[in-house]
Amino acid sequence: MKIICPKSVLAKGVNIVLKAVPSKTTMPILECILIDASNGKIKLTANDMELGIETEIEGEIIHDGIVALNAKIFSEIVRKLPDSDVIIDTEDGVQTIITCEKAKFNIAFQSGEDFSYLPDVEKDDHITISEFMLKEVIRQTIFSIADNDTNRMMTGELFQIEDNILKVVSLDGHRISIRKIELKESYEPKKVIVPGKTLVEISKIVGGEAEKNVDISFTKNHIMFEFDKTIVVSRLIEGEYFKIDQMLSSDYETKVRINKKELLDCIDRATLMIKEGDKKPIIINIGDEAMQLKIKSQIGSMNEDISIDKEGKDLLIGFNPKFLIDALRVIDDEEVDLYFMNAKAPCFIKDESQSYIYLILPVNFNAASV
Amino acid sequence: MKIICPKSVLAKGVNIVLKAVPSKTTMPILECILIDASNGKIKLTANDMELGIETEIEGEIIHDGIVALNAKIFSEIVRKLPDSDVIIDTEDGVQTIITCEKAKFNIAFQSGEDFSYLPDVEKDDHITISEFMLKEVIRQTIFSIADNDTNRMMTGELFQIEDNILKVVSLDGHRISIRKIELKESYEPKKVIVPGKTLVEISKIVGGEAEKNVDISFTKNHIMFEFDKTIVVSRLIEGEYFKIDQMLSSDYETKVRINKKELLDCIDRATLMIKEGDKKPIIINIGDEAMQLKIKSQIGSMNEDISIDKEGKDLLIGFNPKFLIDALRVIDDEEVDLYFMNAKAPCFIKDESQSYIYLILPVNFNAASV
Repeated sequence: MKIICPKSVLAKGVNIVLKAVPSKTTMPILECILIDASNGKIKLTANDMELGIETEIEGEIIHDGIVALNAKIFSEIVRKLPDSDVIIDTEDGVQTIITCEKAKFNIAFQSGEDFSYLPDVEKDDHITISEFMLKEVIRQTIFSIADNDTNRMMTGELFQIEDNILKVVSLDGHRISIRKIELKESYEPKKVIVPGKTLVEISKIVGGEAEKNVDISFTKNHIMFEFDKTIVVSRLIEGEYFKIDQMLSSDYETKVRINKKELLDCIDRATLMIKEGDKKPIIINIGDEAMQLKIKSQIGSMNEDISIDKEGKDLLIGFNPKFLIDALRVIDDEEVDLYFMNAKAPCFIKDESQSYIYLILPVNFNAASV
Repeated sequence: MKIICPKSVLAKGVNIVLKAVPSKTTMPILECILIDASNGKIKLTANDMELGIETEIEGEIIHDGIVALNAKIFSEIVRKLPDSDVIIDTEDGVQTIITCEKAKFNIAFQSGEDFSYLPDVEKDDHITISEFMLKEVIRQTIFSIADNDTNRMMTGELFQIEDNILKVVSLDGHRISIRKIELKESYEPKKVIVPGKTLVEISKIVGGEAEKNVDISFTKNHIMFEFDKTIVVSRLIEGEYFKIDQMLSSDYETKVRINKKELLDCIDRATLMIKEGDKKPIIINIGDEAMQLKIKSQIGSMNEDISIDKEGKDLLIGFNPKFLIDALRVIDDEEVDLYFMNAKAPCFIKDESQSYIYLILPVNFNAASV
């Protein structure tokens, strides 16, 4: 194989597929990026068997062929090459010669015969969403997946399509994040659980432009994202997702409208009083025109009043401050509404149209210590 | 004590003195920042007994007094306060109350009685240098101090003043860095060894403006830097510095003039072929109009030709690529001159006026493997 392509193009392509190269594996072939120039196009592919990424790059094919190169070494070489045309040549059959201006690298290659290409995914069952929307919805929900594997379902996000609505849900046992997005067209109902890792990597690769679209296709076991000459295929998490509708309630005894930034900054300051690993709650005391936030630990104590609009009863309730911070950070509204039932029931942060719902469980605290 | 000062002013001051707070210590008082508002001024001080920093901040003193606050907690609180006036109040004698707008923190304080103030340094023996020059000369030499304590002298830098020249020297047994700076006035001869840590912290604090000056004063055991209402006092390293003049030679058999950026980029690329901890040399083959750089390892090999102007003999010589990179990075000239004697003797990178000299020892290599 012998190909020529500009360094910037090659570097961009390599960075995209690099996201599917596992950091640890016992199979050397998985540590490789495959360069496939056998069909008149130059395609880069990486595949860790859970997640696979393929991207097409512009370039000139002098001799067609396929070669697998160690991803770490190859990507670092490409990154440090001068900004000029790069020639990748495996013609001598022993080594890959990478030449750019006067720099010349020799590295080993593998034949690529053992390489696992991406699984075929039929495109007949698919939806379209803008890059911007996809990236946003991931950012707004990904923080509340569980990061360990004790319950595999919790490490993924539910993507549920009904008519022209895409609903994305994540939960970790202490909180639930729900976002609803209006799509341009209506689709058949569909429910899949997408691994969190896939979504994290997708949101790194997708450009995020509002005018560009991502096509998302589904099969029984896979989800495929297509955008900008790039294909990402991921396994789905099998099983039936948690029934979240029965956890949601629209009753409340207390409703608070508050400036989001003020609340977020205040909780952020309060966390200074907590050492890492310490589980001190922030205590919220909701009164008529203000709510007081209070935290107390070995380090010291902090309290602050924030003006609110209140409906309903007064309430004293405690939360893990991190959970409030995570949710507030991804809400773009200037004012937010908080709904409470009592000190033992979850709090809901949601807008009127319920385009977002963040459910957060309160924590017990010793009322005497407040 | 009760003082009021703007958050931004307080945050700036705290960040300056924070550089002298040790990360690990068995003496809790050393982990503190002292606020001294006893003499009509507000001064912040931190002192780890090797390095002490004091800075004066603008603010209003309601009641004078002195208090020592845990540096980590205090600095984090200050950083996260709203951008408004901060009141620090220890009037109740039990806790420090830090108030800013509606946020109110309570933290413990210490009396400050055990706190070690900075040692007194007479200012009669001092030199003046611009903030820019001081910052630059540290950056251009600090990389070649030794980072372990097996030879304490090597962990510092020689500051030598003779007439109107400040010479700064660092060495680690494999290389020597020398910079000479012209001062505006002439001074009495002086030689001191300044701890590297002090210089690293100084260059973080000093603003780096060419129009602002730093006064540097000396005593037998201490050096003091004064700038911008800030005083930094550091212990000196005792002893006689290495006699470096006898290591320098102006004889050479080969002189090479080369584009600095080309050489630096090339060596930088070559290091891709070296795994961390691996001690592969870069081999330089100096010919008539070009020199070839070559490196070979288990990962693969790399070679590149660079155009040069050469005087004298051809030469094949090996170096630790990191040492070449470190020196080339801090040279601002577009073209550099390299002087060689033979494959066993040090290489010198220096300009004609010898405002900088970088000496680098070559390494042995197996000529058969090249």
